[in-house]
Amino acid sequence: MASGVVKLLRDEAERLARQAGRPLRLVQVASRTPKPGIDLAGAAFSTDLEALRQAEVDVVVELIGVEEPALKLVGDALRQGRHVVTANKAIIARHGNELLPQARRSGVALGFEAAVAGGIPVLGALRSGLVANRVDTLAGIINGTSNYILTAMGEERASFAEALAKAQELGFAEADPTFDIEGIDAAHKLTILAALAFDTPFRFSGVYAEGISHITGEDLEYAKELGYRIKHLAIARRTAAGCETRVHPTLVVRNSLLAGVDGVMNAVWIEGDATGPTFYYGPGAGALPTASAVVADLVAIARGDALDWRVGAEDQAALPIEKIHSAFYLRIPSLDAPGVFAEVATILGQYGISIEAAIQREAAVREGAGSAAWVPIVIVTAPVAEAAIDSALDLVQKMPKVVGRITRIRVAHFADE
Amino acid sequence: MASGVVKLLRDEAERLARQAGRPLRLVQVASRTPKPGIDLAGAAFSTDLEALRQAEVDVVVELIGVEEPALKLVGDALRQGRHVVTANKAIIARHGNELLPQARRSGVALGFEAAVAGGIPVLGALRSGLVANRVDTLAGIINGTSNYILTAMGEERASFAEALAKAQELGFAEADPTFDIEGIDAAHKLTILAALAFDTPFRFSGVYAEGISHITGEDLEYAKELGYRIKHLAIARRTAAGCETRVHPTLVVRNSLLAGVDGVMNAVWIEGDATGPTFYYGPGAGALPTASAVVADLVAIARGDALDWRVGAEDQAALPIEKIHSAFYLRIPSLDAPGVFAEVATILGQYGISIEAAIQREAAVREGAGSAAWVPIVIVTAPVAEAAIDSALDLVQKMPKVVGRITRIRVAHFADE
Repeated sequence: MASGVVKLLRDEAERLARQAGRPLRLVQVASRTPKPGIDLAGAAFSTDLEALRQAEVDVVVELIGVEEPALKLVGDALRQGRHVVTANKAIIARHGNELLPQARRSGVALGFEAAVAGGIPVLGALRSGLVANRVDTLAGIINGTSNYILTAMGEERASFAEALAKAQELGFAEADPTFDIEGIDAAHKLTILAALAFDTPFRFSGVYAEGISHITGEDLEYAKELGYRIKHLAIARRTAAGCETRVHPTLVVRNSLLAGVDGVMNAVWIEGDATGPTFYYGPGAGALPTASAVVADLVAIARGDALDWRVGAEDQAALPIEKIHSAFYLRIPSLDAPGVFAEVATILGQYGISIEAAIQREAAVREGAGSAAWVPIVIVTAPVAEAAIDSALDLVQKMPKVVGRITRIRVAHFADE
Repeated sequence: MASGVVKLLRDEAERLARQAGRPLRLVQVASRTPKPGIDLAGAAFSTDLEALRQAEVDVVVELIGVEEPALKLVGDALRQGRHVVTANKAIIARHGNELLPQARRSGVALGFEAAVAGGIPVLGALRSGLVANRVDTLAGIINGTSNYILTAMGEERASFAEALAKAQELGFAEADPTFDIEGIDAAHKLTILAALAFDTPFRFSGVYAEGISHITGEDLEYAKELGYRIKHLAIARRTAAGCETRVHPTLVVRNSLLAGVDGVMNAVWIEGDATGPTFYYGPGAGALPTASAVVADLVAIARGDALDWRVGAEDQAALPIEKIHSAFYLRIPSLDAPGVFAEVATILGQYGISIEAAIQREAAVREGAGSAAWVPIVIVTAPVAEAAIDSALDLVQKMPKVVGRITRIRVAHFADE
């Protein structure tokens, strides 16, 4: 990413100067390790961050990634009265409530468009273009790694482990992919999107995050048969009871725009009360797409039209996941005996859970083996409270004829279906 | 649209004041006809535009639509040192080269996000979020009327005339639909998009516009069979030879994002050299979506982060349509006689035009009637210069066995296929 920023500033200097109304000059670069291969266009280089603090610069660009020493660098720069541009979603999601007021007090800009969805200018859209709207629904595919894995599992019938290995081989996943596949990275980004959409403070601790490692090729196939695709969605919804913010694998209707976002691409769906449904799509990561967002923030600062951020003022409660209503996809591994489906349906019915669609395979296409034949029962429910599905599935899981762990995946619907 | 702006300013006053950092107060409204049914939240009303000039206001919002008296109102307001927000694509496309410098000289903002693609903040994306990019390809569905008509023709097998009548009945088309169906409205919008994307002056006179009234249900069916859909696209491309700006019916690959934009929805596809392909989708018209963009510009002015527009500085030539290369869909009504296809292929070959795909119906599904049986020959060519296809089709049209007017529709490809 840093190399992308240097490349743009160096190779596009003339065009950027025209857009910014003045030259954007790279003065000082600091990195833990020397970068002998990169042409810094005359900028000084140091392996000591202190060099940045000492340098005479107008703007500090922070592309460290991890939380420390990035947070300290950004905080110090703002206190010094320097503008800051950062791509660091973690420090904005976790410390934005202090950093934004700090920037305001110092009368400087804090740009972080690059922190969410890389090359897609979606934060600007929320803060500026859609600002007249009350946003009640926002949903995004905002982690390229997990989207790549789910896409590869679907297209190449790869297992989760195989798809992850391939993502790592291609550089789309880290050696330790936890942040991406468990939804932490997406939760950081969703924290930022939700704060802007709902005009609330940043509330990372209120985000529910669930990963994709339990999704199987079987689930992708059944979802397809039912007219859905499975995506690792980040969803923010405002309801009368409070704001939902959640990251989890999700069934989305196959012909919806979000369902068509494949590979490492990102997209965000935003429903405003005035503008109606809008959708933003593009590369979510990579050196140049992210650099595009970083340099856009630099140009805005130079031009004097950087967005005026502030911490949101609405104080609507964050809803815990237990309070959320969703439809559910259920895959219940069960013995191929008469009456199993009826028994499951009865238990669901006792908790007021309707069945919207179901698949039960004939003996001819039974899968698995063992002492007794078994088949999965696959069900899509009507929307139901999490507490109700929890209680019902506790009982179903204990049925003697249920022979494996039940898989449950939430279903979400959007206005473009 | 004006009623939508009044509604937002009135009903969302508190939220907007928080976002803007100050109240947005409606002071004076002028309209040719009295509007007794609208609650103006205390603003004065006049049927004389002069009242606006006299009123003590910071910002003039122009939502007249037609070119005069809008142009004079906007010009006067800028000269008076007032900020202006307008939804008027015609005056920006035709007079932006004078209006933007006028605003700059007066030190005021001129907001026109509402002029293109209604509720989609795509001008902001180009001027701000994507500003670090060199954009070489942009394509949009930016006229809801023509997109509604093509969608209805495809879904309901309606003729162009039937679909237009239905659009008029539903309020999606004007009594005189010329501006929309002939591509003039889209050409105004494309002028603005291209100027921002390529950093050139506004050059409406350089835009080629072709309407959709010659498209038939047959063409939609053949396109579908060939794996395409037909959309009324506005395309801007930068090539070594110059900038193409053109509005015409276009075959796009069926699973591409643009192909999925139906009804009155709008969308814009933008390829930046740093960010890669990005895509923006939402409602293109309607009172509230457009008001969303108008009020967003008002908030930005109040907040002090309105975009700093200026006339583009690059002076790349506008390419006339004759100089453009496209693939073509051709439907050639011809007698069902041996050797017709071969004769057509020979003529195309003489002009270096390759055939990529073709459909020729068997006698069993022949259509039409008359003294001799006839069938259309349908061809998709490889990309070719307009001049070559013109010359080749002149000859094909004169073939004795070609019994009707040849339909030709350009084909465009994008990176998401």
